[in-house]
Amino acid sequence: MTLDARAPAVSISTDALLDHWQGHRRVTRRVIEAFPEPALATYSIGGMRPFAAMAFEMISMTSAGIRGIATGDWSGGLLHHSGAEPPATREELLRLWDQSTAQIDEMWPRIPAARFNEIDKAFGVYEGVIYGLLLYWIDNEIHHRGQGYVYLRSLGIEPPAFYDRS
Amino acid sequence: MTLDARAPAVSISTDALLDHWQGHRRVTRRVIEAFPEPALATYSIGGMRPFAAMAFEMISMTSAGIRGIATGDWSGGLLHHSGAEPPATREELLRLWDQSTAQIDEMWPRIPAARFNEIDKAFGVYEGVIYGLLLYWIDNEIHHRGQGYVYLRSLGIEPPAFYDRS
Repeated sequence: MTLDARAPAVSISTDALLDHWQGHRRVTRRVIEAFPEPALATYSIGGMRPFAAMAFEMISMTSAGIRGIATGDWSGGLLHHSGAEPPATREELLRLWDQSTAQIDEMWPRIPAARFNEIDKAFGVYEGVIYGLLLYWIDNEIHHRGQGYVYLRSLGIEPPAFYDRS
Repeated sequence: MTLDARAPAVSISTDALLDHWQGHRRVTRRVIEAFPEPALATYSIGGMRPFAAMAFEMISMTSAGIRGIATGDWSGGLLHHSGAEPPATREELLRLWDQSTAQIDEMWPRIPAARFNEIDKAFGVYEGVIYGLLLYWIDNEIHHRGQGYVYLRSLGIEPPAFYDRS
């Protein structure tokens, strides 16, 4: 991740990057919706966390993450590292999900494009270039969402289409 | 995915983008290695494909994909759509994997940075901006690799660390 401004580089508009993130989040929201209750909060394979706990981690990283990118303030910490429990119901999980979606949409326009190439320490711990930190959170979401697909299939439920980001 | 060159944009060096891709591929290679035989080619949950078939799809997309990006020639088509079967052994799968890794490293330096912002039709079918097509292949790999993690856990095997891209 070079910061050399003379290096050949790919240009991704901040609008496209936002849509890339929110597009993935739309798919993940449909995965949450596809889970029946109580499986969302209880179903596990191989000792892994239920999907509600994975989704709660995504909400936690997203919420503290977008705030840190937009303001440089990472002091809030990660909700899922604070001992907070995932919501007990799908309805409450979706409410938190939609809240973090709105938070991204609200804060994103305040972020100058140059901010994405700054080095910062996410959550006071993970040092890296901002766009790389954001890609990490998106990758982490895709990773765990893929696990949710296996949970759904093993419950006999067809997951939403991976390629449909609408 | 706007092509408006005046829009605020994030700049990702082509070196960093290559490392992002190959870093994920290093993790996936370790997942292939972590599977015992014959589970790699046979183990399934919920009717999903064994991990060997998923990895073969990644190799197929990677190999035809990097060629298409570098040359604009997508005529080779996708190996896994041609009726070709995934390799029967882990050793052969890793050999193909390493072959596609070398192919990327060889072709990447020939790709001008501006190519990543061109619109093209991947494999003659999927139209989009080149960097978006590449991100899609990476996301697809993360998605299926996450599924491989569930397979491994349910087989009682600890998967490699998600965050270690070395």
